[in-house]
Order: sequence, then C-alpha cells, then structure tokens
Amino acid sequence: MSDSLFFPWEKIAHAKRVARDNAIPKEWRLRPGCVPDDQLNVMDVPRECGILTETELQITETDADVLVEKLVSREYTSHAITLAFCKRAAIAHQLVNCLSEIFFDQALGAAQELDAEYEASNLPRGLLHGLPVSLKDCFKVEGTDATIGCTAYANQVTTIAEETEITKIMRESGAILFCKTNVPTAMMAGETYNAIYGYTTNPYNRDLSSGGSSGDESALLALGGSPMGVGTDVGGSIRISASFCGLYSLKPSSGRFPTSGLRDVMEGQKAVPNTVGPISRSIAGLELWSKAVLEMKPWMKADPDCFPIPYRDIEIPDKLCFGFLPDDGVVKPLPPVARALEITKKALEAAGHTVIEFKINDPLYTENLKFALYRSGAADALHNVLARTGERWPRGMEMLQEMIESKEAPGSVGGRPTVSDLWRAQVKSTEYAKQILQSWVATKTRTNTGREMDALLTPCTVWPACQKYGFIYDNYTSLWNVLDYCASTIPVTSVSQDEDAKCDYEGRNATETKIWNDFSPAAFRGAPVGVQLVGRRWNEEHLLKVTGVCDDALKTLSNA
Amino acid sequence: MSDSLFFPWEKIAHAKRVARDNAIPKEWRLRPGCVPDDQLNVMDVPRECGILTETELQITETDADVLVEKLVSREYTSHAITLAFCKRAAIAHQLVNCLSEIFFDQALGAAQELDAEYEASNLPRGLLHGLPVSLKDCFKVEGTDATIGCTAYANQVTTIAEETEITKIMRESGAILFCKTNVPTAMMAGETYNAIYGYTTNPYNRDLSSGGSSGDESALLALGGSPMGVGTDVGGSIRISASFCGLYSLKPSSGRFPTSGLRDVMEGQKAVPNTVGPISRSIAGLELWSKAVLEMKPWMKADPDCFPIPYRDIEIPDKLCFGFLPDDGVVKPLPPVARALEITKKALEAAGHTVIEFKINDPLYTENLKFALYRSGAADALHNVLARTGERWPRGMEMLQEMIESKEAPGSVGGRPTVSDLWRAQVKSTEYAKQILQSWVATKTRTNTGREMDALLTPCTVWPACQKYGFIYDNYTSLWNVLDYCASTIPVTSVSQDEDAKCDYEGRNATETKIWNDFSPAAFRGAPVGVQLVGRRWNEEHLLKVTGVCDDALKTLSNA
Repeated sequence: MSDSLFFPWEKIAHAKRVARDNAIPKEWRLRPGCVPDDQLNVMDVPRECGILTETELQITETDADVLVEKLVSREYTSHAITLAFCKRAAIAHQLVNCLSEIFFDQALGAAQELDAEYEASNLPRGLLHGLPVSLKDCFKVEGTDATIGCTAYANQVTTIAEETEITKIMRESGAILFCKTNVPTAMMAGETYNAIYGYTTNPYNRDLSSGGSSGDESALLALGGSPMGVGTDVGGSIRISASFCGLYSLKPSSGRFPTSGLRDVMEGQKAVPNTVGPISRSIAGLELWSKAVLEMKPWMKADPDCFPIPYRDIEIPDKLCFGFLPDDGVVKPLPPVARALEITKKALEAAGHTVIEFKINDPLYTENLKFALYRSGAADALHNVLARTGERWPRGMEMLQEMIESKEAPGSVGGRPTVSDLWRAQVKSTEYAKQILQSWVATKTRTNTGREMDALLTPCTVWPACQKYGFIYDNYTSLWNVLDYCASTIPVTSVSQDEDAKCDYEGRNATETKIWNDFSPAAFRGAPVGVQLVGRRWNEEHLLKVTGVCDDALKTLSNA
Repeated sequence: MSDSLFFPWEKIAHAKRVARDNAIPKEWRLRPGCVPDDQLNVMDVPRECGILTETELQITETDADVLVEKLVSREYTSHAITLAFCKRAAIAHQLVNCLSEIFFDQALGAAQELDAEYEASNLPRGLLHGLPVSLKDCFKVEGTDATIGCTAYANQVTTIAEETEITKIMRESGAILFCKTNVPTAMMAGETYNAIYGYTTNPYNRDLSSGGSSGDESALLALGGSPMGVGTDVGGSIRISASFCGLYSLKPSSGRFPTSGLRDVMEGQKAVPNTVGPISRSIAGLELWSKAVLEMKPWMKADPDCFPIPYRDIEIPDKLCFGFLPDDGVVKPLPPVARALEITKKALEAAGHTVIEFKINDPLYTENLKFALYRSGAADALHNVLARTGERWPRGMEMLQEMIESKEAPGSVGGRPTVSDLWRAQVKSTEYAKQILQSWVATKTRTNTGREMDALLTPCTVWPACQKYGFIYDNYTSLWNVLDYCASTIPVTSVSQDEDAKCDYEGRNATETKIWNDFSPAAFRGAPVGVQLVGRRWNEEHLLKVTGVCDDALKTLSNA
C-alpha cells in the first residue's frame, strides 16, 4: 500500500482492518474456497466447516440461560464455553464481516481466572457467571477501540477508567467479554456499513442486510457466534437488527438500564433518549440479561440517570389482549411481514387471547419534529467527527449532509435550531405522547379483560431483512423511541417463495412505492421475518412476560 | 382611572386586582386600621381579628392529616372546614397579599356536594377526602385564570379540558380547591412580586419576603389560611418559600409526580426538569399528599413522563448518618442559618445519629451551564410573553433582559445557543452529576452504618427570609434541581437578636459581601429559619422518613 495514494482516513481504516483480521488465529480460518463468495445462506457453515468439535457445536447452540446453569453445575467450564464461542465468532466473522474488536486471548484468560475462582470459592460470580457476552462497538472495553465505524475514533484505546458502565456491570455479573461488533458510521443507519470495515451481510442471505445499528451483533448471534449480545437503540437499532436476523430483543424505556460511558457522537442528546438492551436467541436470555444488570443496582453506581427500580417479578393474567397495528398508513409492510403479523394474530387468538384494532393518528407527526429534536445536532456532530480525518459522508446520509452544508436548514432561523426551537418541538412531542397514551388507556373499554391492552402487535420494519442500501423507512421502530415505550421483537417465520408472492400494490407515497417495487420473494429468499411488541413506558418486565406468552402461542400454532 | 393614562398591561392588571379583591366577602374583611401598615409580625391577626369562630380557629390550626381523619370520622363536615379556611385565607390575603385567584363559592359548593355524597355512600372520596387544598397559580383550574403574574395570560379562563393533571388528581382524591396563590413574574424569582398583584410579604415580618416562586403558598399556609399547598420547583421555588415561612416541604425528583398541563413559559424545557411538590405544616402532610397523588396512578393517565412507581412504604434503620455541608464555599449562610444547621447537627447527634462532613467540588460548575441549559430559552420566552401586552421586565431580571437584548449572548455563536450547544452543556452537567454521585456513594466508607449517607444536611438558602428584592443567590437549592435529587425543608428556629449578632466577615466575592453587609438581626427580626435535607434521586419516600427522624430529633432537643 503506497502511502501517497491514500487519504489519512483510508490508512487508518486499512490498519484497523488488518489488525482485526490478524486477531483471528490461523487454525480458526476457513479454508480458501470452503464457502463460495456467491453462497447466500451461510447458516450451516459453522456446523460443517470442521473447526468446532461436536461438544463445541452443542455448547454454541445452547441458550444463554441454560449455559449459565451448566456453568454453575460445573457441566462446562467457562474456558470451554468461551473457547467454543471464540471459534464460532471467528467463523461468523469470516462469513458476514461482523466483528470490530477481537480480544479472544483476554477472554480465555478471564474465563480461566473465573473457573479457578469458582473452584476455590464455590460461589458463582453473578447471574452471568462465566457466560461469553458480545458487545456492540459503542461499549468501551479496556484495551480496545470504540470507533463506532469512524476513523476519527481509531487508536484511542479505552482505559479501565473510561469503560462504559454496562461493560463493568457485565464483568461484575460474571460475563466473559470476548469481542465487539461492527456498526454503521456513528450508528446512524438501519444497516451496518462504514469506512473502516465495510458492509455486514445477513447470514440467512448475504445479499441482504443484517440490520443496524446493532446489526453485527445480530449477525453474530444468528450464526451462534455469541450466546448474548448487547446493543443500543435510539431509533430501532436493537430491534431492526434482531428482526432481520431472526432473534429476540428488548429495547427498554430510557433510564431502566445505564447508558453511561457509551461512545456516541450524539452525547448530551436527551430529547430522544438512547437505550441499552439485550439481543438473544430466547426470551429467557433477555430476562437473564435484564435481571443481571438490575441486580447490580446500577443506580447506586456511576449512572446518575438510572432509575432505582429493581427487576420486578410479576405475574400476568392468563388471558391477554393485544392491540394490532399492521399498517401505519404510510408504508404497508411487505407480504412476508404482513403474513408474520397475521400468523401471530392467529396464534394469539388460538391461544385464547384477544386481538383488537389499534390506530395511531398522524404517524409521521414526530418524524417532522426530529430536525429540532436531534437531527440538526447529529448532523453537526457527524460533520465534526468526519472532518477530523477527512472521511467522506457515508452513503444514505445525504439528508444529514445536505442539512449541515446548507447554511439555512429547515425549521430554524439562521441554519440551526436553538434551544427555544427544541422546546417548541418538545412541547409538540409531549402533546403527541399524551394523545397516544390516551388512546392506549382508552383501549380498556374494548379489551374485555378489565385492563388496557397488554401490548401492541405491530411490524418491526416493513422488510423481512432489507436489501443492501435499501433501508429507507424506520417509523415503526423510531416512533417508539420518541415516545420512549419499551418494545421487543419475536422471530415468526421466514420468507416463503409461495406465500409471499409479489403483488400489484400502488404505493401511497414515493417511499412506499419504491419499497414495494423493489420486493420479490426471490430477492429476499431465506430471510427471517419478525414482528414487534410494544409495551407501556417503563414496563419492561410486563412486556417480557407478554412476549413469552406470544412466543408460546406461536410455537403451539407451528406445532399444531 | 382614565384609560388614556395607562398602558394596556396596566389596565389588565388593575382589572385583575379589582376582581380578585371583590371576591372576598365584605364580612371577612378586616376593619380599617385593625392592623397598622407598619405592623411587621401579623401571625396573630387571624386569631385576634374576630372573624373566625373558636371552632374555625381550632380547625385551621389542625394539621392536614388529622383534618382528614376528622372528616372521615364525621367530626367535621368538609363544608365547615372549607368555610374556616376560606375565611382565614381571606384574612391572610389582606395581611400579606398572597392570593391570585379566589373561588370560595365554588369550593363551598363542592364541599357540600362531597358531604352529601359521603352521607349517601359512606365511602371517602380519596386520601384527601374533603380537605381544602390551595394551589400555586400555575396549576390550571377550571373557571379561573393562570396568569403566573403575566398580564399576557390574564382573561384566558381555563376550561375543564385544559386543567393541569395535578388539579384533576387533587379533586379525584377528594380535595376541595378554594384558591390559587400568587407567584413572581413567570415564576422566575426567589421572591414573589409581579406587575398584576405586586409584592407578597412574609407574615412573620412584613419587611421581608415570603420567598418564591411558591411564596404566596407558603405565606398563606404560615397564616393558617390553607392546610396543604402545592407548588412547583425548578430552582428552589418550593423549598425557598417553605423555608422563609417556617414550613415543611418536599421537592421531588422529576417524574415521580405529574407536571403535565402546568402554565409555564419554559414549556418544553427538559434539561432541568420542573417538579411538583407539597408544602405543609407537618411531615405527615407531605406524606399524605405524596400518597394521595401516587394512589391515583398518574402514570396510567395523561402524563406520559410520570414513572410507574407507587408510593413505597419503607422502613428505615434506627441509626442514620447525615452528610453535612454547611457552606458551599461561595456564600456562607448568614448567622441564623448557620445556627439552625448547628442546632440540627446537635439534635441529630444527641439522638444517636452520625453527622459527617460532605464536600462538593466546584459548586458553581452547573451555574455556568445554565445559559445553554435553559436561561437563553427562558429569556426568549419571557421576552415574548411580556411583549404581548407591553409589560416591562420585572426588577431583578436585568440579567435575562440583557441576555435577550444583546444579540451576542455569552456562550453561543450568533446570540442563541443551538441544540448542539445544549448537548455540550448536558454532557458537562451529566459529568458533574456523576462526580457528585460518586462522592455520595463514597461516603459509605465513613458512615459507620454500612450504607452511604441517608441524606445531606445543608442550607436551603443563606437567609432566614430575605429582604425585599434581596434574593441574589440560589445555588443551595438550584444545584439539586440540575442534579435532580429530591430535597425537603424543615423549620428549625427563628432569628434571635442575641444569638445571631452581626459579625465582621469579609466576603469571598461580591455576592457574599453584599449579603453579609446587608445582614443585621434587627432587620430580620422574627423570621423563621429552616434547613434543607437532600436525598438520592428518586428516593422521596426514604427522604421523607429521614426528614421525620430529623424533625423528631429537633423536637426532642428543644424539649430537653
């Protein structure tokens, strides 16, 4: 690589890529040609490539909560489990390009220490005793970078004092941190690609996206490369990624879990609060993570914005009522998603639950407030970060780039919204939140349970998993960020060549028309299809239980 | 009044004053000359003026919680109690000019209805069954204005749909709303005066202030004109007023009690969140109000920002540890306040509790962030409100006026902080909050209780009650708004001519020098002296219990 031919940011990116790839031991590398470049579905490769032993395959296909039981009962050592996941993560990475920071050696060392400690003390370290946990790149971990896909943040190795609060809590709970996963530039997209590491694909179909901005976390988990992942969600990042990769996830309301110490170009932004949550292959995994974090009483530690609410063990009634919002009136979900919603509705009804219609007025109302709420600040912040190394604006962020480069941005005087402009937007946003709350409360008269609806069943995104650079609509997730409701995702089915036929549908607007035009079942072959459940603000424990009921109903239906 | 001689705002103000004063029945008016204008202490006038019966005097000198018991046990009717408080409120108003909106007739009608309902149903309406409650002017009540001292808001009578959430909750809990109390212009001062109603004085010494911005609520309660008052606090408003008038009060952390529907020129401001809380003559009154509001599950209603945390009945250990911060290093409290702090410390130690030093680094750190956090927006908002009727800027708000009139305000480019400027300030503010939290947590090693300190004992303000237009330092209260900790006030003593002698003290800065120069025990004769207890964020129930322990210790000491 001749230095003179490249921009500074390119040199940084190249060095980061080389260092990352060198961190994969030779014996865990796939044989050249073992997986053809044009092989779309790579889900079976970890099982077939011969790198993992039978036991390691078994370990890496076991759910997180069961793994912890087996660790505590000494069926497995943490070292054995960690080794298995390191191997499988290495394979996953070679298939879909999902890791940003690799620290397998430190993880194996930490696992050995934990095993020795357990041997001596006979006391598990915490609820995640010995469990490998992967983290989205924005979580700062000692000894590694947290670039969030920006070359400006490369080579700023995190010190122990700088670690993210969740990083510390994971470790205190007994988790073994072993890798971090890639994100879109500054985490500002629904797909994962950036100037350092390029594009992460979907392991079910490598022509498709794994989602974003926690997309590589999901790709890794889908391939069995991690039993538990931690992401962040300020517009849909956890849910989009989980849904695209056939996983369960929880986006909590703000304040339930600490967000302190994250790398974030929008640091200080509070209008639409960032949240931290788990991605897992089971609902038990989501519950386990939530309990583990809250058991550490994060409000007693370093996050002044974390609520003093412990994990609430609650009972829910036998018969539930779900609101149903299959179409927001702006972009109707594509046939596979519409089908997944109908399957879920049918499953719930078959299990004796009620499903009622729920409508939302003016679904894009808060979308139009986002310039003042955070987009102007985001554009400024990203501009500054990119400028440090001369990095170009990433594809798909033209809107933000235009915003920053025109000195007269919309909705403000003199180019940038002032604090007073923000207040006006916040008044409107709160007014809208009141309306939604009142609609939610008003369902009580229609549920036949004596209560308001227990959750809202709605698309997570309009796609099963979107095509590369095709993510152009996020209001099904981002609305619930502005409103700060909690939400979960459930995998329901996968794209069917028979049942999800392309149909003639005339879009109600350019975005919808484009999305529907671009659809064909062949193009989305094999993609997982998920749905979203939305719960009351700060009601995570209830939502997780309700998500479990929904999942059980789906499993009963599919076994029937 | 010749129309042509006056500005529009003056005509509005005059009409509001006349209407308000006419709402006081003739038979409740004090005889001319009954209280000389130069009589400073008017605390005994309600008892001596002959307008209340012996029973009414007894009623109005009974604590709120006991009144509710007597209402439920039918010892008194709500009508009798409401009548007594209406009379006494009328007298209080004539003494210190404390009411903004008077609706005694409606209150007496509502009380009669409630009595009839109770007679028929035998079910108390709620935890405040039949209790008269007064509200700060910013709480919108059907059929009345909510001017918050601004002529621009006059003659905009609240409809039932526009009522503040707390107004509705008070009524649903059984409270009888009977009057609203005056505030400083837009509630932006530590003393109560505005262009509509003028200045509210302190009933213990009418040369002094009753505090602000919930100042008239406190003056009313001190004179026995209301058994329970509700205020708001975004910089000290509840606490300053309560402390100046010898009362108990609670400023909660944000989100515990609904703030939805308040009149507020800073609507949409979230960086330093507004809070709603009670003022009372007893701690039991504060607890009663808190329980009554939370029993109504406000998070299930119309406030999307209210947390789903019910009132937590907690036990506290026998031996507590209090942090002690008697001087923030910027303005040392005046001798009466310093003495009150020492008395409290002594009382706590005598009762077997521990008191340890607690220090705060850089106490004005957040003060310097306030321009971006909210002051620029506040200045803009007030400018717009005043401009509507041509009202002048109130005295003491020169800083805000200068800010808005210079087009190059400090700390920003082009005059006004942008959303990005706010983010930078919020990053700093959160960083500071972390430091304070860590200092708080670190007390665990010094408390000898195995826990961190239970509360921080510190001045509420540097004055007993300040002189007119003398309120120039609020960091002892406003710091805890920026950090969003909960805080309470306790009355401790009153100014002593012997013990609180003027002493030579050279101020460390101009503000401190001015405050100490202006002090003499004679000028502050009779003024109550309170202290503040600060509790962990969102830990109101614990703080109230701890405040009770502190109050008991003070009573034991004073009886010893």
